[in-house]
Amino acid sequence: MDKCRANFVFAKLNMNFKIRAATTVDCKDISRMITELAVYEKMPGQVKISSEELERDGFCQNPLFQCLVAEVPDENKPKEGFAIVGYALYFSIYSTWKGRSMHLEDLYVMPQFRGFGIGKGLLAAVAKVAKEKQCARLQLIVLDWNTPSRDFYAAKGAEDLTANEGWHLLRFHGQNLDALAIETPKN
Amino acid sequence: MDKCRANFVFAKLNMNFKIRAATTVDCKDISRMITELAVYEKMPGQVKISSEELERDGFCQNPLFQCLVAEVPDENKPKEGFAIVGYALYFSIYSTWKGRSMHLEDLYVMPQFRGFGIGKGLLAAVAKVAKEKQCARLQLIVLDWNTPSRDFYAAKGAEDLTANEGWHLLRFHGQNLDALAIETPKN
Repeated sequence: MDKCRANFVFAKLNMNFKIRAATTVDCKDISRMITELAVYEKMPGQVKISSEELERDGFCQNPLFQCLVAEVPDENKPKEGFAIVGYALYFSIYSTWKGRSMHLEDLYVMPQFRGFGIGKGLLAAVAKVAKEKQCARLQLIVLDWNTPSRDFYAAKGAEDLTANEGWHLLRFHGQNLDALAIETPKN
Repeated sequence: MDKCRANFVFAKLNMNFKIRAATTVDCKDISRMITELAVYEKMPGQVKISSEELERDGFCQNPLFQCLVAEVPDENKPKEGFAIVGYALYFSIYSTWKGRSMHLEDLYVMPQFRGFGIGKGLLAAVAKVAKEKQCARLQLIVLDWNTPSRDFYAAKGAEDLTANEGWHLLRFHGQNLDALAIETPKN
């Protein structure tokens, strides 16, 4: 048992991976992992975006997001044959208090590839881009029951603004958004 | 007293205002109201963005935000002489579940101009832009103690995702963001 455990730890410390900017070729893998993340977040029915739409929206002249992927070499590929085992999808936002900021929409690593530093690597790479773009903030949202993720971000120094300052996220969508849009006053 | 009250209600129903896209000329007024909103939100020390930076970031070739302002005619100007009495500042974001979405960063109406439908008008105008841009969602954040704003958005059909689904807003900034950015693994 001890030997097995030692081997496991050794393997964990030595997983090779590469983080690089996503290309259109990666959209199918990103789309697959978006669904995997939604399943983990217990909202699988919410995903309406296809890999073709990701390609259209993220790899055009004025892309709506940027994306990094984590790739493992052939010897570490899972049995399903995927080389892309994680992703981080983000975009610029704006704070009227601090100026240019960054929002991390998704950060995901396939379960069997967790514990190797891939998530940390993706998060750090997004933070690096944020600093290069002179962003004052990098922010994200996380579900309250998602303790592993909350602990991961807290360990890296993230401040929970909902807990500390009381910020709530509100959303208009569907019929409420439609109804609101037709209320526009005539000037 | 009754007469006064009747006059007041009459005046409230008849306030003229116009909602239009902001221009660089409005940046000083927007900057002033950003500070007024921060004071209302009990975080006045947080505002670091000047009107010059707003002008640079929002009125360039690839603007980081869009902004609408509410303008009142000369006869309704407050004693300070401002014609711009409210604003809504927003930008495009992206959902990996629903695609293109809109974030409303700030919606503000000066206290003496509330109750005339200016806030509703600004919100509806942003919703109209969101629909025109084929956004599936319009979202925003609000402080839990800010009952007037929470009631205003709830009355218009906004869903509180922090209360209903448990989403928390997290943020890296300052030294935590700096430290994270230099952790980037070497590929």
